[in-house]
Amino acid sequence: MADNRPNGLKANKGIELLTWGTPNGWKASIILEELKEAYGKEYTWQGINIGQNIQKEPWFIKLGPNGRIPVIVDHDKGGFAVQEGLAILSYLTRHYDPDHKFSFSDPLDVSRAEQWMAWQHGGLGPMQGQANHFNRAAKERIAYGMQRYTGETERLVGILDSHLKETDYLVGNKYSIADIASFGWVNMLRFSGVDLDAFPNLKAWWERILARPAVQKGLSIPSKGGFGNDAYLQRLKDDKEFAEKEHGLMEAIAEAKKKYGYKYASP
Amino acid sequence: MADNRPNGLKANKGIELLTWGTPNGWKASIILEELKEAYGKEYTWQGINIGQNIQKEPWFIKLGPNGRIPVIVDHDKGGFAVQEGLAILSYLTRHYDPDHKFSFSDPLDVSRAEQWMAWQHGGLGPMQGQANHFNRAAKERIAYGMQRYTGETERLVGILDSHLKETDYLVGNKYSIADIASFGWVNMLRFSGVDLDAFPNLKAWWERILARPAVQKGLSIPSKGGFGNDAYLQRLKDDKEFAEKEHGLMEAIAEAKKKYGYKYASP
Repeated sequence: MADNRPNGLKANKGIELLTWGTPNGWKASIILEELKEAYGKEYTWQGINIGQNIQKEPWFIKLGPNGRIPVIVDHDKGGFAVQEGLAILSYLTRHYDPDHKFSFSDPLDVSRAEQWMAWQHGGLGPMQGQANHFNRAAKERIAYGMQRYTGETERLVGILDSHLKETDYLVGNKYSIADIASFGWVNMLRFSGVDLDAFPNLKAWWERILARPAVQKGLSIPSKGGFGNDAYLQRLKDDKEFAEKEHGLMEAIAEAKKKYGYKYASP
Repeated sequence: MADNRPNGLKANKGIELLTWGTPNGWKASIILEELKEAYGKEYTWQGINIGQNIQKEPWFIKLGPNGRIPVIVDHDKGGFAVQEGLAILSYLTRHYDPDHKFSFSDPLDVSRAEQWMAWQHGGLGPMQGQANHFNRAAKERIAYGMQRYTGETERLVGILDSHLKETDYLVGNKYSIADIASFGWVNMLRFSGVDLDAFPNLKAWWERILARPAVQKGLSIPSKGGFGNDAYLQRLKDDKEFAEKEHGLMEAIAEAKKKYGYKYASP
């Protein structure tokens, strides 16, 4: 991929997805794979290596002014571009899910799905993202940030777990874009320093969704990564050096929580 | 207000708003005031003092499981509750803005508005919120957090400023829920440590929206606060002790940026 760095759109019909293998990218690739399986709707994609800041280049910014993946372009609607995961999930189902297989027609269910997507978009996504930053990306280990965001991520997934006690899916007991929005973040929960086993309803929901063929395909665009809960556990088993480093990180997170008196309280 | 602490809903028809005077609360109170002015749609509200954690009480959590204001309850739809600012703006206009005075009917404009709302909901809101936390609420001064989030807030409002170079409002050159979503956060930009004067198109947009009578009314629910850009500047003039403290904070933010080599780059 490195030798053909994207520098513009490549398709001229259907949906073109510009993405990378992150929880936000997976929202778009999963719904596109679901629509493909359900309706035969084809799409094109390009991998936008965010490590190389391709999403900050002028041609990309023109399509997605926020400079973030994923972005979709609808060549059948005059090249209309959509940024922001929530808006992509809504746009694609509004236009290309006529039978409401992954969305809703009842206005109150529409709102319920929108509420869960917004909850993810404004809460779980940004806060788990900050947890990843303080736990892994920041050059200093800042205990305050580590416990603040890992703790908030726990609080948030606790809300999902509690809601899923009596239902298999977030809205109307039907798999939908509401589930897809949060799935990718839950799929990397272990990597973020939160123990998925502590949230049994959430874990069952995650397994249920992970088993879908379209989800498996969506997770492999642009390529299968090592962030997912399963890949992470496997690597802990296979790679001793990695396991030791991860053990050190998880201890540092636990110490940070202790230092600031953080305690998880179920909702 | 302290002597009658809310402990449940009080209306039995129309919309009931549970809110507090924050940028997220203002989204709901402003659109409700606009709908009231445009259509005569009445609503009820209760002030939920977040300093007293009323939003964490069981009766509130049942309506808004995330434990955050604002929440609306539609008594005319069987007591249907809506949490999350984006979902509230969408719900209220979908049901109670038949002439699309603050929303859109063209599907691409619907998506444009949704994209800007999602951009605010997942970016400007959470990141400016973290800036406020590290600059003001955290018990330690953590330079890393201060520069990270104040800087990200600047990057984000720079995107608004750039978009507003050639239009008076975010979508279709018409005041809408897309503007209302971001307005409240921009209204407290100075308090968050970002210089509104550095973003002239944004400042003009903020003044344009602030001049609307319904916006003025919305900002005073449950009561007029001291966070707004105007109130903040006035207090700097009137209150010498406050001005000195604020000057110290702004210097600390500038030093934090310097320490980590942060430089604002326009989008």
